[in-house]
Amino acid sequence: MTTLPSQFVALAERLADAARPVVRKYFRTPVAVDDKSDASPVTIADREVEAAMRAILAAEAPDHGILGEEHGRTNCEAEWVWVLDPIDGTAAFITGKPSFGTLIALAHNGVPVLGIIDQAFTDERWMGVAGRPTTLNGQPAKVRACPDLAHAYAFTTAPELFCAQTRPAWDRVAGKVKRVRYGCDCYAYALAASGFVDLVVEAGLKPYDYCALVPVVEGAGGVMTDWAGKPLTIASDGRVCAAGDSRVHAEALRVLA
Amino acid sequence: MTTLPSQFVALAERLADAARPVVRKYFRTPVAVDDKSDASPVTIADREVEAAMRAILAAEAPDHGILGEEHGRTNCEAEWVWVLDPIDGTAAFITGKPSFGTLIALAHNGVPVLGIIDQAFTDERWMGVAGRPTTLNGQPAKVRACPDLAHAYAFTTAPELFCAQTRPAWDRVAGKVKRVRYGCDCYAYALAASGFVDLVVEAGLKPYDYCALVPVVEGAGGVMTDWAGKPLTIASDGRVCAAGDSRVHAEALRVLA
Repeated sequence: MTTLPSQFVALAERLADAARPVVRKYFRTPVAVDDKSDASPVTIADREVEAAMRAILAAEAPDHGILGEEHGRTNCEAEWVWVLDPIDGTAAFITGKPSFGTLIALAHNGVPVLGIIDQAFTDERWMGVAGRPTTLNGQPAKVRACPDLAHAYAFTTAPELFCAQTRPAWDRVAGKVKRVRYGCDCYAYALAASGFVDLVVEAGLKPYDYCALVPVVEGAGGVMTDWAGKPLTIASDGRVCAAGDSRVHAEALRVLA
Repeated sequence: MTTLPSQFVALAERLADAARPVVRKYFRTPVAVDDKSDASPVTIADREVEAAMRAILAAEAPDHGILGEEHGRTNCEAEWVWVLDPIDGTAAFITGKPSFGTLIALAHNGVPVLGIIDQAFTDERWMGVAGRPTTLNGQPAKVRACPDLAHAYAFTTAPELFCAQTRPAWDRVAGKVKRVRYGCDCYAYALAASGFVDLVVEAGLKPYDYCALVPVVEGAGGVMTDWAGKPLTIASDGRVCAAGDSRVHAEALRVLA
């Protein structure tokens, strides 16, 4: 694997630093909500946060690509591509619930090698960098051991997010775990990285929804792949399985298959 | 309605102040989880938080009753009864998710007239007192207008919490609202009181799950009743409907019926 230049890590932190005040400015204010073509909500906050990050990238890394939820694709054939979700969990954001997050990933030839989950309201930043331990606000974050699905606390954002094809697979997993909880968006993966959640299974995600999560979960000692067990890249199908313990991950993949 | 003695309001705040450090001591630490007879999880944190509040009540209001989730009923025939849920949303608590809360209610002849929702991690305290405006950290909290279910953001903790009898009613409501989100526990009612959530519908709740929520929601300008539209008391059947706007509340009741 290419070593990640340290100035890219610093740049990622600058993006997160730039996003925070914009997120905070709009959180728990009555922002107007537009419904996008896929019926997901978007606000001025999503657009402004992404614009703030793009402005920095345009100045500091003009040869890098950008894949952002709100403002689309720019130069995505580049060796280095920033994958940005200014507010993952917009429905949480607009209902005042601090489980949303700003997601920042850097992909090298399509493979995420750096990820940040930034929660502006609770002042928490998880950061994963390939080859380094994941941190939460600078302190090491670590997954916990869990022997099997029967002992696992599992999260997914909402059962409705699965389609007719993927819902039965999720239902099988949900029927085998110790407890299912909902409504956590990216925060569920952060909690897995910190050792409080054992499994997160979702489907229908876009690259900006999952790329930043992979280095965070894996740098904390977890495993995160697609449902076939393949590494996640920008081009994956949006079905993801993240677990703190590789035994839970392997069992979940068998049940999902 | 009997005027609530102001020293009872101060006493309620003292209970919340006593709960916080205990909650914080255990949050995001690897506490052992026991599964109670109803399969809901409980930890040493639940028990210690309730014990801390009971110790204060024993000293300061020995003639009052106490109905607590963890340590049961004491003198519940008294005119004034404290209804305590040390950690509402224990599953959230043990998975590191700050949507749990400490719930403190004071019921007068069975009717909740004071409620506190205290979130120790995000440092947020909603307080509702009959006849006064609800506050969040001392500042007024207010519901928002919403004309009908079609415009409503609705929350419930998890679809599985409904039983065979109540699930179809919930599904009808869920099919009519703008968006359903899950996984918020008591925090959903707090967000309704602050004007970011329009509707919360749940069933199977115990008095310690809902009594504190009523004064918070109603003092913020909302409506919270059982599914038949009757005021909630200690003796209600645990089916609750809370809305920021009375039009949404009325429509939800019609759909639930």
